[in-house]
Amino acid sequence: MTLKRTHTCGELTAKNIGDEVILNGWVGPRRDLGGVIFIDLRDRYGVTQVVFTEEDDQLHEKAEQLRSEYVIGIKGKVITRGEGNINPKLPTGEIEIEASELVIYSEAETTPFEIKDDIKTNEDTRLKYRYLDLRRPEVQQKLMLRSKFYQSVRSFYHERDFAEVETPVLMRSTPEGARDYLVPSRVNPGKFFALPQSPQTYKQLLMVSGYDRYFQIVKCFRDEDLRADRQPEFTQIDVEMSFVDEEDIYSHHEQLMKKVFKETIGAEIDTPFPRMTYNEAMNTYGSDKPDTRFGLEFADFSEIVKDAEFKVFSGTVKNGGGVVGITVPGQGDMGRGAIDRLTDRVKEETGAGGLIYIKMQEDGPLCSVAKFLTDEIVEQMVEEAGARQGDLVLILAGPNPDVLKQLGQLRLMMGKEFNLIDESKYNFLWVTEFPLLEWDEETRRYHAMHHPFTSPKAEDVELMDSDPAKVRARAYDLVLNGNEIGGGSIRIHDQKMQSRMFELLGIGDKEAREKFGFLLDAFKYGAPPHGGIAFGVDRIVMLLTGAKSLRDVIAFPKNQKAQSMMDNSPDVVDEDQLDELHISIKKNIKDQLS
Amino acid sequence: MTLKRTHTCGELTAKNIGDEVILNGWVGPRRDLGGVIFIDLRDRYGVTQVVFTEEDDQLHEKAEQLRSEYVIGIKGKVITRGEGNINPKLPTGEIEIEASELVIYSEAETTPFEIKDDIKTNEDTRLKYRYLDLRRPEVQQKLMLRSKFYQSVRSFYHERDFAEVETPVLMRSTPEGARDYLVPSRVNPGKFFALPQSPQTYKQLLMVSGYDRYFQIVKCFRDEDLRADRQPEFTQIDVEMSFVDEEDIYSHHEQLMKKVFKETIGAEIDTPFPRMTYNEAMNTYGSDKPDTRFGLEFADFSEIVKDAEFKVFSGTVKNGGGVVGITVPGQGDMGRGAIDRLTDRVKEETGAGGLIYIKMQEDGPLCSVAKFLTDEIVEQMVEEAGARQGDLVLILAGPNPDVLKQLGQLRLMMGKEFNLIDESKYNFLWVTEFPLLEWDEETRRYHAMHHPFTSPKAEDVELMDSDPAKVRARAYDLVLNGNEIGGGSIRIHDQKMQSRMFELLGIGDKEAREKFGFLLDAFKYGAPPHGGIAFGVDRIVMLLTGAKSLRDVIAFPKNQKAQSMMDNSPDVVDEDQLDELHISIKKNIKDQLS
Repeated sequence: MTLKRTHTCGELTAKNIGDEVILNGWVGPRRDLGGVIFIDLRDRYGVTQVVFTEEDDQLHEKAEQLRSEYVIGIKGKVITRGEGNINPKLPTGEIEIEASELVIYSEAETTPFEIKDDIKTNEDTRLKYRYLDLRRPEVQQKLMLRSKFYQSVRSFYHERDFAEVETPVLMRSTPEGARDYLVPSRVNPGKFFALPQSPQTYKQLLMVSGYDRYFQIVKCFRDEDLRADRQPEFTQIDVEMSFVDEEDIYSHHEQLMKKVFKETIGAEIDTPFPRMTYNEAMNTYGSDKPDTRFGLEFADFSEIVKDAEFKVFSGTVKNGGGVVGITVPGQGDMGRGAIDRLTDRVKEETGAGGLIYIKMQEDGPLCSVAKFLTDEIVEQMVEEAGARQGDLVLILAGPNPDVLKQLGQLRLMMGKEFNLIDESKYNFLWVTEFPLLEWDEETRRYHAMHHPFTSPKAEDVELMDSDPAKVRARAYDLVLNGNEIGGGSIRIHDQKMQSRMFELLGIGDKEAREKFGFLLDAFKYGAPPHGGIAFGVDRIVMLLTGAKSLRDVIAFPKNQKAQSMMDNSPDVVDEDQLDELHISIKKNIKDQLS
Repeated sequence: MTLKRTHTCGELTAKNIGDEVILNGWVGPRRDLGGVIFIDLRDRYGVTQVVFTEEDDQLHEKAEQLRSEYVIGIKGKVITRGEGNINPKLPTGEIEIEASELVIYSEAETTPFEIKDDIKTNEDTRLKYRYLDLRRPEVQQKLMLRSKFYQSVRSFYHERDFAEVETPVLMRSTPEGARDYLVPSRVNPGKFFALPQSPQTYKQLLMVSGYDRYFQIVKCFRDEDLRADRQPEFTQIDVEMSFVDEEDIYSHHEQLMKKVFKETIGAEIDTPFPRMTYNEAMNTYGSDKPDTRFGLEFADFSEIVKDAEFKVFSGTVKNGGGVVGITVPGQGDMGRGAIDRLTDRVKEETGAGGLIYIKMQEDGPLCSVAKFLTDEIVEQMVEEAGARQGDLVLILAGPNPDVLKQLGQLRLMMGKEFNLIDESKYNFLWVTEFPLLEWDEETRRYHAMHHPFTSPKAEDVELMDSDPAKVRARAYDLVLNGNEIGGGSIRIHDQKMQSRMFELLGIGDKEAREKFGFLLDAFKYGAPPHGGIAFGVDRIVMLLTGAKSLRDVIAFPKNQKAQSMMDNSPDVVDEDQLDELHISIKKNIKDQLS
């Protein structure tokens, strides 16, 4: 028998006093006071207090059975709690339900951890019992915000006449980018599908097909070694537009962010967003995703120290490296012990060779390598750094761009350590003009920094032959508070340029034809100029909800070994299944398994 | 250089005459008339005529290069076409653009087929050049309707406070249902993920977690032998609700259909939908997804003929079979040849042993097996069938339920053959009370007709021991014009009942724990009564657009060998990739490949 609810557990207020109502939900804390039983009844919408008096013996007896997490339906009358018992923190805090009927739908064993916020249970247990963890109000709020986020995003694109198109999950394996997840084909023995790392080629084909504006919220997959906060499957907002340049992409997506932040968390976002070239970002913040919520911009001392006797400085500059620093305000009195610990940490976490400092003391700058430098040089460095009395200048020397990245990490450490970051801010930033290529020492060839379909800037095309590393791409990232939340580019839409790009990447004609022939062919039949962007849904929702991990905003996440603790997947499968797929597990592995 | 459009190719009308505009698009048919060049410029939004006069030599010369499918930008003035040249079929038919500027973004080779509707090109070619096929207006219209469909569906659920939650694509392989697609794990050697056939267990867990109402538009996967119209990956609307019974599911989803049909094709759908039990549907239409747009309901002659001397009839009935028929109006004069051909077709397509008929001639009924039957029996059959002069009664005899299914197929044949189907109708029908179990002769055990999580009807629970085949499930399908477009059930939410169900299905305790332990465990901690439904997006969009195949409403479909002709996937992969995944291709297959 089902008692059909008339209300949820989050909506009854003083206005409903006197109403007969039915509620369904989970039993929370129960209190017995002088024969009267009080329970909190909980559902996704809220909590309502229910009272079982001693008037009805049978009902009272039944209520005595109730334990935490029982699922029940109750019928009763909304009454006032009476002064002194009102809970102003709850929307339903003024009322309670005097129950006249009770149906127990499901009993419950004692849960392995309490269903409430702020629990200390370790993550493995929470992941194993994910269905219980998902009951906790703070987790529910995050996932409900995520639900709202989807619809806010989608209505944005539909209002602007973007075509929502689903692209295949079973596609071909491509050699570029991260490692593919493969899916053996039963009907095509010895052949494999791959799961998409992104629908990149499909969305470009949709432009060639004239769909003009495309978007999709889509699952993508990367079989990477899982660092601290990665998931094997992740969700992205995938977008492509025809007949556009960078400005169109920027202006549309500034409006997207404005709308979504307003509709999900009520935040007002200013547009347009500031922009910074990749070079500027690297030289100023040592990062292509700088957190601009605080300063500590870099000072470049290379010119000042290039002829210094101190070889750590002058030698570095002569070899093309840099001597750079940041000024931490008010830390000029940092003690010897603290500086030593910081130096160790910098070496360990950033890989820098050492840390040099200038303490801006009352009686003048005190430089840790003063004996190797002239006073003049130290003075010039202080000036360049804009350091004032009481400040601490931290200096690194090393090859480029490593030294910049190391100082970037040090900057973040200092920002956190000394609470320089205004956590209430949402600082968006477009980072532009990424290099087209990156040299990879290991494979001794260029890699595409974004992906092989990214267009070079027209004025840099000549450099593709003479100095490929200098070519700037029409690529951009959207950064929020130091997190890359999206990235994209204006694409190549010309078959010859695309072939040339493959060539630069060391992808031979044959391989290019084999893997991307259909895209090169498509470009032959009339391709519009086009470009796009993709946003990381998991990360944006994480930032919107203030979650600490991607796992907190994914309903059923994998752990850092790409396993689901809840259903114990991946797992071994029947030999029959593998036979049908024409594959077998390598012998050494099989021996270990059995 | 990009000419940024001021308008699309579908929006300029007489109101814009005199305006300077910029359009971007693809060149369609070109006509040269007395030195003036006319082209149709096409984009996703429509077609606009562009004129290049001889006034500007340079421009005219450039325009002379234009060929079909070139991608261009033009600048010009909107002028009237002048009487006689107006094309009332086009929204832009009153105007044309007198071009003053032309930019060619991309040239185009001759396409392998023309970019227009009604082409005769074979499907393999169209699939290989899918990016060109997708350019054809009729294909674009279907995919744009599909785009609108998504948002119409989603706004329905969001308005009703359903939580949209993404469930994993990499999950564990389960033994029930169709064949899984497997994904080898690199980090967990010898272990495999499976792609979801449906997010069934996840959505039930979400109910256990208190999400109350869940929906998702989600890709699912089945590695089945592809019949005429199946795809290895397909899209479904997946829904689950707590504290509900069948009526809640019905009423919500009748409103969903009403809204979606209105918003996508402007059709008015009447609610509530009619309902029919599985038994009634089988006995009346020989199908669990009857097309109710036409009659030809079954007449059951079994009782009448059970003692007839004609053993084909009486013997069949004695063995538990049936003698059933339909009355085709106005076909009583069907000639001998036509009847013979029909008989052959029935035998071949339905597997029936033969076809018996009664022609309702002017001088009385003429039965094909009259010599074995008394006049009285024939009269009674005619009466039971409700046949009138001029009608044709078609009769099959055979074991149940085969004979019903065979007659069901014959009914559909007749409906099509004699145009009895009103194609303008949208006939929705809930089919209810499906059997819980099906006996499978091959494996000699029961299978779940819907799935193992479906609740039996309370009043039939006793039969689970005594007569399992008789147990009716709380399962329902939504049928539209003879197509199953959705199906679902009220679920088991009790651990003991779920274990009992597994037992009935021959799934041992150990196996159940291994595969579904997490679900059984979840039920221990307080599970609400819940139920849900899933709809086939591809099929519904096919019906909405009048498409003939699922492939016509999927942007990048697979062919019947589960291959993508366009990018030639699945394909062989590098040996390195397999090594990393700890698998190898079976030797016999590998030998064939090399």
